[in-house]
Amino acid sequence: MSLPANEIVSALSALVGGDNVVGDVARMGAWLSEPRKRFHIAAAAVVTPPDVAAVQAVMRWAHENNVGIVPQGGNTGLVGAQVPRRGDEVILSLQKLDRIRSIDAAAGVMVAEAGTILENAHRAVEAEGAMFPLWLASQGSARIGGVLSSNAGGVNVLAYGNARELTMGVEAVLADGRLYNGLNALKKDNTGYDLKDLLVGAEGTLGIITAASLKLYPLPEDYETALVNIASPEAAFELFGLMRERAGSRLNAFELIPWIGLDIQLRHQMLDADPTASASPWYALIELTRMAGTAPGSLQSALEAAFEATLISDATMAESLADRTRMWAFREQMSECQSREGASIKHDVSVPIAAVPRLIAEGSAAVEKRVPGIRPVPFGHMGDGNIHFNFSQPVGADPKAFMAEYDEAVHEIIYDVVLKLGGSVSAEHGIGQLKVDLLKQVKDPVALEMMRAIKNALDPKGILNPGKMLG
Amino acid sequence: MSLPANEIVSALSALVGGDNVVGDVARMGAWLSEPRKRFHIAAAAVVTPPDVAAVQAVMRWAHENNVGIVPQGGNTGLVGAQVPRRGDEVILSLQKLDRIRSIDAAAGVMVAEAGTILENAHRAVEAEGAMFPLWLASQGSARIGGVLSSNAGGVNVLAYGNARELTMGVEAVLADGRLYNGLNALKKDNTGYDLKDLLVGAEGTLGIITAASLKLYPLPEDYETALVNIASPEAAFELFGLMRERAGSRLNAFELIPWIGLDIQLRHQMLDADPTASASPWYALIELTRMAGTAPGSLQSALEAAFEATLISDATMAESLADRTRMWAFREQMSECQSREGASIKHDVSVPIAAVPRLIAEGSAAVEKRVPGIRPVPFGHMGDGNIHFNFSQPVGADPKAFMAEYDEAVHEIIYDVVLKLGGSVSAEHGIGQLKVDLLKQVKDPVALEMMRAIKNALDPKGILNPGKMLG
Repeated sequence: MSLPANEIVSALSALVGGDNVVGDVARMGAWLSEPRKRFHIAAAAVVTPPDVAAVQAVMRWAHENNVGIVPQGGNTGLVGAQVPRRGDEVILSLQKLDRIRSIDAAAGVMVAEAGTILENAHRAVEAEGAMFPLWLASQGSARIGGVLSSNAGGVNVLAYGNARELTMGVEAVLADGRLYNGLNALKKDNTGYDLKDLLVGAEGTLGIITAASLKLYPLPEDYETALVNIASPEAAFELFGLMRERAGSRLNAFELIPWIGLDIQLRHQMLDADPTASASPWYALIELTRMAGTAPGSLQSALEAAFEATLISDATMAESLADRTRMWAFREQMSECQSREGASIKHDVSVPIAAVPRLIAEGSAAVEKRVPGIRPVPFGHMGDGNIHFNFSQPVGADPKAFMAEYDEAVHEIIYDVVLKLGGSVSAEHGIGQLKVDLLKQVKDPVALEMMRAIKNALDPKGILNPGKMLG
Repeated sequence: MSLPANEIVSALSALVGGDNVVGDVARMGAWLSEPRKRFHIAAAAVVTPPDVAAVQAVMRWAHENNVGIVPQGGNTGLVGAQVPRRGDEVILSLQKLDRIRSIDAAAGVMVAEAGTILENAHRAVEAEGAMFPLWLASQGSARIGGVLSSNAGGVNVLAYGNARELTMGVEAVLADGRLYNGLNALKKDNTGYDLKDLLVGAEGTLGIITAASLKLYPLPEDYETALVNIASPEAAFELFGLMRERAGSRLNAFELIPWIGLDIQLRHQMLDADPTASASPWYALIELTRMAGTAPGSLQSALEAAFEATLISDATMAESLADRTRMWAFREQMSECQSREGASIKHDVSVPIAAVPRLIAEGSAAVEKRVPGIRPVPFGHMGDGNIHFNFSQPVGADPKAFMAEYDEAVHEIIYDVVLKLGGSVSAEHGIGQLKVDLLKQVKDPVALEMMRAIKNALDPKGILNPGKMLG
């Protein structure tokens, strides 16, 4: 059992100083209120340790006293991993560990503390002439520790990988306060188990990441970007194959967008001009990197080959930065634009990329049969097999009544299709609180047993992010 | 304690059939004798299960009876992970699980069983017009399960990653016979801990990989390959930066070779012609991929920029497949050529790539001071910070006396430099038996504690590859 809240606050104040502890729930709003407003619950206290030693001191104390600790970064997660589940936990915010310890553009490595805001990391790296290729809608507030703990993805996973693949090493405080020093900057290191990848994506249930060494890449000279008209997801899959054959790892993005997304954004004046060439049931946003000393024109010539193969019917090439920005705005507003049309039921799923057309066809048909008038809005990272398979309410329906009646039913239909196709019910957002029960139903039971065994081995008292991921 | 050998043989025969069990040590040569001839010791039996269910049956029995099991693939590992340490273990060879379950070139995925020989996997994939980009000197006998369990590297890690990064999912039999089914073909899956990466590189100490889903890539149209003269490792590091800026992820290989390697290979007629343009203290073998529809000339123009920046003094471009083959033969014979000059002391180490010049300079100076006349032969994957830092005996020295006197001393000197530079004492070969004691000395103690906790959680009886990695 945990301690009473007042004892927790005074113990933490004695450990790390009163300035680093908030005990009044009325002042905890920024830490308690999460983006989807689904998991708003109290905490016993919020602690903001000023350095790694203070994180260790808090964990040693929490371990001795059986106090649940919820690690938190920028509080931007979409599945409730970063906020309490019971209400008697302490939120441990990494926000004060926001130092970039080093940047070496020539060597391609940055060491950043967990509290570093992603956008600040971008700016610091770009000032040195390099890039850290992980971009998220929430990058103005998301922090490195949370980005890694959720193994965040984003729009350039195709070329650079997700957070896990961009991380060389981590430093982490364990459940009992021990410090794991895995902060190397090595591209190859076969000296033991892959602890780094175990901590990345563990949602703070195995340790608290306090810093990470991250891979930097040279800035491309330019990008070649186009928005192309395609008849169907099947054609999109074939086009993706053609682009990979011709562009290899220069293929930076291959995003699928349905016509309804354009329709909504134009009707609500969310775009300053129509970025597409003409009306089409589906669009693909395609981008190639172009490095210094390389002639432009690769995308143009690949699209000509695609025309000849009748995979695409029309296309717009970005001729200016404004064009490129508009094309990306069109893509990035896909999530937000749905809110202009009332409620929507969301899924962040992945399947083997060859199965994306079946996922969309079978999922849409089954849901439309169940909910007449519902509007499928499947979009996203076709090149990763990761579709944000969302459904907007029927025109004119009552949002609350729609959600109350259909949310669970639509989830069930989509997850059934996803599992039948060998897919994942959480491609990039994670499990947190939102999908704990779902995970128990769908995950390989031996995988769950292995996960529980590892959790018990590294956090025998279960004080790290209690109730998250494994329940 | 283990059972007597004769009981083991009859129990295994009853489980999987006598045809799949070898009990006579005289007939075990192929399984016992490993490449470096350092760890030749008996086994109680060799079992070659014909399918996954038989692997499970063996493990259930081994778990009940406390019998140590040594999983083995192609028996090509260089650190003794795949052969017994005590002599009373059972070698479990995966050689009969050699089916390629599926290849889908368009989707970029192959599912291969653990016993599949790497070169057979290459051939099967290339017949479908794709490639599996992991090449090793031992690929004619190395098997997928061992390649993954050792997280093998090779010459194209720079562009495609090592075995871990090329693996999407694994199927594995656990210590007690349970089957972990993680064989998905997903590029993104954030549903729990990263068990795949824990099993990859674990040297069979946490589970026995029985199959894997692996990433396939489109075949490049062509390669652009050159062998360039460089004055020093410092210049090589700068040149690497220039190549990355201009070629990005098209940079397929950046290998460093010292002049002595050319000298030895020419003197021993190991090359049909000199692949270099002129004499130089150091050479870099540089290769770019060229995808369909892309104009050639990127490497040429990058090398011109390097000339202008006085980073290189001369270069040969491969003008034919024969040229390219010869350049790669020069690189690939670097390990073997040393044996023509007597004994050599070998290290497979990595450092942050910016530190490679210091590693070579300080390591060579310190060893030359300790062993007058010794010949440093540092070569390898500069682009990964991974140097095979070898030393050939002084000309005319007695090989046995040289090894007896200096092997340990030189190791100590090199590992000291490596650790001072934040490096790894095993970049790609692993720990196995060879480096168990070394690992205990050099690894972060908390990392070792975490590893032991995970090992105990997944293999509480310690029957999976006993004594390997953690001792």
